[in-house]
Amino acid sequence: MSKLVIVGTVAFDAIETPFGKTDKILGGAATYIGLSASQFNIDGAIVSVVGGDFPKEYLSMLKNKGLDISALEVVEDGKTFFWAGKYRNDMNSRDTLATELNVLADFKPVVPSRYKDAEVVMLGNLHPLVQLSVIEQMNAPKVIMLDTMNFWMDNTWDDLMKVISKVNVITINDEEARQMTKEYSLVLAAQKIMKMGPKYVVIKKGEHGALLFNKDEIFFAPALPLKAVFDPTGAGDTFAGGLAGYLASTGDYSFENMKNAIIYGSALASFCVEKFGAERIINLSAEELNKRIHQFKSLTQFDIAIT
Amino acid sequence: MSKLVIVGTVAFDAIETPFGKTDKILGGAATYIGLSASQFNIDGAIVSVVGGDFPKEYLSMLKNKGLDISALEVVEDGKTFFWAGKYRNDMNSRDTLATELNVLADFKPVVPSRYKDAEVVMLGNLHPLVQLSVIEQMNAPKVIMLDTMNFWMDNTWDDLMKVISKVNVITINDEEARQMTKEYSLVLAAQKIMKMGPKYVVIKKGEHGALLFNKDEIFFAPALPLKAVFDPTGAGDTFAGGLAGYLASTGDYSFENMKNAIIYGSALASFCVEKFGAERIINLSAEELNKRIHQFKSLTQFDIAIT
Repeated sequence: MSKLVIVGTVAFDAIETPFGKTDKILGGAATYIGLSASQFNIDGAIVSVVGGDFPKEYLSMLKNKGLDISALEVVEDGKTFFWAGKYRNDMNSRDTLATELNVLADFKPVVPSRYKDAEVVMLGNLHPLVQLSVIEQMNAPKVIMLDTMNFWMDNTWDDLMKVISKVNVITINDEEARQMTKEYSLVLAAQKIMKMGPKYVVIKKGEHGALLFNKDEIFFAPALPLKAVFDPTGAGDTFAGGLAGYLASTGDYSFENMKNAIIYGSALASFCVEKFGAERIINLSAEELNKRIHQFKSLTQFDIAIT
Repeated sequence: MSKLVIVGTVAFDAIETPFGKTDKILGGAATYIGLSASQFNIDGAIVSVVGGDFPKEYLSMLKNKGLDISALEVVEDGKTFFWAGKYRNDMNSRDTLATELNVLADFKPVVPSRYKDAEVVMLGNLHPLVQLSVIEQMNAPKVIMLDTMNFWMDNTWDDLMKVISKVNVITINDEEARQMTKEYSLVLAAQKIMKMGPKYVVIKKGEHGALLFNKDEIFFAPALPLKAVFDPTGAGDTFAGGLAGYLASTGDYSFENMKNAIIYGSALASFCVEKFGAERIINLSAEELNKRIHQFKSLTQFDIAIT
């Protein structure tokens, strides 16, 4: 078992989909990453910040999942980061209705000393300089994973390139990979991104699955075909959390084991979209996850005997 | 080895892509299906029609691939079916510039008596009543496969439903499956289509792969991630031809073997898009196909040990 450091937002989300809408519920990249990673045998810490309005029962829940929240700072006189969004009918695109940074505006992540020697670091979507400051606090992690999005490409390109040059694994969605590299082919896009630093490039294609690139090798994990997607919020972070959690729990960072990690990430993401917010991931049993891995096997494994 | 009957167009295509354009070249659904199926050990016949303008060397080439062309009628004073199209920059959509039915307008397919006992019938995209007339000429095929498209849904719905009720396997693209069933989820769409008749539903998602449905089981084959798609023309028919050819050559129509067939179809389609028209499939060696199957294995196979 390796230690895992998770950095990202812990937040309130208000979500509207064609199926319904929520008031402020638990959200945030680090929340989804942490809950997903906690499915594995890990020693993981969440580095983040919330305001005094953040319910104590959410903190207890994260702690009960085995996550170290000593570096989840509570700014008593501040307000928690809030995002509101509305999905369109196809569930593939969404409009942001509100973004209130609140306590996140002054977030200075501090990695607890007990976690400075963690082998795996998962940097959720944040300002690249905040991500960079976490890397600088670590001793010698074996795997630094980064998630980012188009906002940082548009506004903080140079800083983003700086942090990308220091990471081993990047998770990015297909449109963002294309925007970042000006390449339509995801194969060519991944090759360009590998030249920026990461050894492994993971391109998330939503309902069309995820691609893992390493040198000239490619692995593909489908998304589980579903009767309905109820709420896609957090699916990408849940995917990344599964990846990070599985890697930390196995301590094996080979391409072969990365394949397994991608499958676990896809399986966890397939649960995430079944209910609003993090509800399904919070209430997920090991048996259910195991059963879904079997489904991924029968979905993808075949037996052609060739020489 | 089982016999295979292939019905569909043999045609001239003129293609324009962002990479270049062709004059009239060899095209047509039955051409791609036949060439793709000929990669396997089969006894296959093409049932189609061309005009007197159809080059004799194309006929020889098909014959040299081991395809029986005795039911590929040549109407000496007629002209061959012609289609011209132009792909947009993303290569996922295209505009039809010309469709000249010519000899296809009066096409009455006649299955040669030696092939009436074939186990596998592949009905390429054609008027549903033409497809139906082929089924009626067969003795007792074990697998009838059908490809269709939105044009027939828009214009000949009742006839299409008649032929669909008689087939075992349907190949259809994702947008067409949605149009046919009014379901956005491909899982729900496939369930509705199975109720129309087919035991197996294959939904083609282009660059996003293909899904195979049977009862409650699902198998997924990705498309090979490519640096460039040169010309998508014929990829869907090449896929279907691989499916039909593999099934006929093995004589095994189980779900497990359908998985292998889907992988072969995907592998063959991945070659098709590398060059204009059928050029790459015509010049494809068994070694190249074998190597690509290995690529599909490393692309999709993983080794998670769970109980």
